[in-house]
Amino acid sequence: MTGSASAPAPRRRGRPPRAQADSGPGARQRILEAARAEFAERGYDKTSVRGIAKAAGVDAALVHHYFGTKDEVFEAAVEMTLEPVQPAPAVVGDGSLDGVGERMARYFIEVWENPATRAQLLAVFRSALTHEAAAKVLRTLVLRRVLERVAAELKVPAPRFRAELAASHMVGIAVLRYVIKVEPLASTDPEEIVRMVAPTLQRYLTDPG
Amino acid sequence: MTGSASAPAPRRRGRPPRAQADSGPGARQRILEAARAEFAERGYDKTSVRGIAKAAGVDAALVHHYFGTKDEVFEAAVEMTLEPVQPAPAVVGDGSLDGVGERMARYFIEVWENPATRAQLLAVFRSALTHEAAAKVLRTLVLRRVLERVAAELKVPAPRFRAELAASHMVGIAVLRYVIKVEPLASTDPEEIVRMVAPTLQRYLTDPG
Repeated sequence: MTGSASAPAPRRRGRPPRAQADSGPGARQRILEAARAEFAERGYDKTSVRGIAKAAGVDAALVHHYFGTKDEVFEAAVEMTLEPVQPAPAVVGDGSLDGVGERMARYFIEVWENPATRAQLLAVFRSALTHEAAAKVLRTLVLRRVLERVAAELKVPAPRFRAELAASHMVGIAVLRYVIKVEPLASTDPEEIVRMVAPTLQRYLTDPG
Repeated sequence: MTGSASAPAPRRRGRPPRAQADSGPGARQRILEAARAEFAERGYDKTSVRGIAKAAGVDAALVHHYFGTKDEVFEAAVEMTLEPVQPAPAVVGDGSLDGVGERMARYFIEVWENPATRAQLLAVFRSALTHEAAAKVLRTLVLRRVLERVAAELKVPAPRFRAELAASHMVGIAVLRYVIKVEPLASTDPEEIVRMVAPTLQRYLTDPG
């Protein structure tokens, strides 16, 4: 029991209680990590700014100070989650589109095979599926961070649509393999999935037809 | 306010209160439709057998009598939802695999473009993503009802895996187009999606390589 929950602090405008001791990059990072954990554990609906503040050991006013509304905290937490999931360098980094289908397939599978990343992606995904506000954050971030960067490298008509088609396949595999856990897909060797899927992605990303 | 909520009926074993008036196919159907609506509106977590009974205007004991536990009511409601979504005849009905990729793509898109079916599928999908019990029901039903039937017609190695790969692509398109609503995929002409995706599905379902 910490922060705002421990005692009713006197209300002061302009400076949240305990802000001095808790402010700075350390507190900001703690808030983000607490937010990510809270959203993952409780879902978007049941997570509150107050709960995040409590978990981070700071006052709720400090969360508002750094991030604003609950939606904005969610956006920052999702940004942090997606930070290591940016495929641009791994997929189209050297500018060559030879083998880009295989690189994209392998990249997605590796991100999802990693239990830590998988748990975070699932949490974000669950929130997006149940709350329009969360879906909007995901839509904006995924568009800006991932699909635009891949699409910018393509030399096909409607490159964004092509990048989305490729991504949709990998998202669907993630849903069937890791969420619904349909067999045999759930226990198929990842390399076999990459082998089957790579030509599909290659066609979407490079075939002008 | 109907059923069990209206008045505390005397407890009698063997015959639920109002069972005589409410039993029969009419009550069973009403319960199923109430269950589907409740699960869709409230999600798996917040739906109760009592709430379903109330919405159907019957006693909770009658729900238990017909269906058993909440999980079993959910399964029956999902079965009813998926009833019109069985692709077997439309996709592989005549036994020919010529054009099966295009038929499967068009079938999925038509089911999702229909607002009524889409709302029901989204509701089932949300429940499956947030509750393992719901995921298990979906897994079992989707396997038995859809993928096994398609796979049985295929002449490729690992036919079930191939059917799942094809289905995963369409599921991913549904997620990006109808749930996250990523543009331009969300507003692309369905025929253009079918045109791009059909060769992929055809390859998975018929190419032995």
